[in-house]
Amino acid sequence: MALVRQEIGDVLRDFRQKKGRTLRQIASRASVALGYLSEVERGQKEASSEILASVADALEVPISVIMREVSDRLALLEGVVIPDTVPAELVANFDADLVGTR
Amino acid sequence: MALVRQEIGDVLRDFRQKKGRTLRQIASRASVALGYLSEVERGQKEASSEILASVADALEVPISVIMREVSDRLALLEGVVIPDTVPAELVANFDADLVGTR
Repeated sequence: MALVRQEIGDVLRDFRQKKGRTLRQIASRASVALGYLSEVERGQKEASSEILASVADALEVPISVIMREVSDRLALLEGVVIPDTVPAELVANFDADLVGTR
Repeated sequence: MALVRQEIGDVLRDFRQKKGRTLRQIASRASVALGYLSEVERGQKEASSEILASVADALEVPISVIMREVSDRLALLEGVVIPDTVPAELVANFDADLVGTR
């Protein structure tokens, strides 16, 4: 079974290492305990949405980019081909003024 | 702040309604309490990875497709444009025999 938290952990670690940051640096910036972040990266703990947002912020990576990478990896595990990026109708209706109003 | 659980809840509800299923039907198939699934759909509860997998299974939607929709909606909220689908190097290295071995 493909588990979301395992992929989230892998993706967070990969982004952190790509940016040359230590666990300690990101945990400190995100105000989470180092041991907790380590468990999240190893897929042993489910991170709450608030903690995910804080860690994404500390990594300076949008949470959408993290979740996109998670979905891409899950798709490879599941053998799923997802044909398109953002659905055309959403792009057509996209209004920058509405971003953040939900 | 864009919260992952809010988008997950919206996406699960949208897929369920698109398939014409009731909360009761999906909760039963996924072996989760109806009230719990309702709270997940409203973004009030974080679903564990195991429960997400069960609900995705009950909806007959791959978890990767659910998370892809979640990331697309988060990208719209964040005003992020994600340029590509699966990274080219992953496609090049993709080996169907490896799917499910992790």
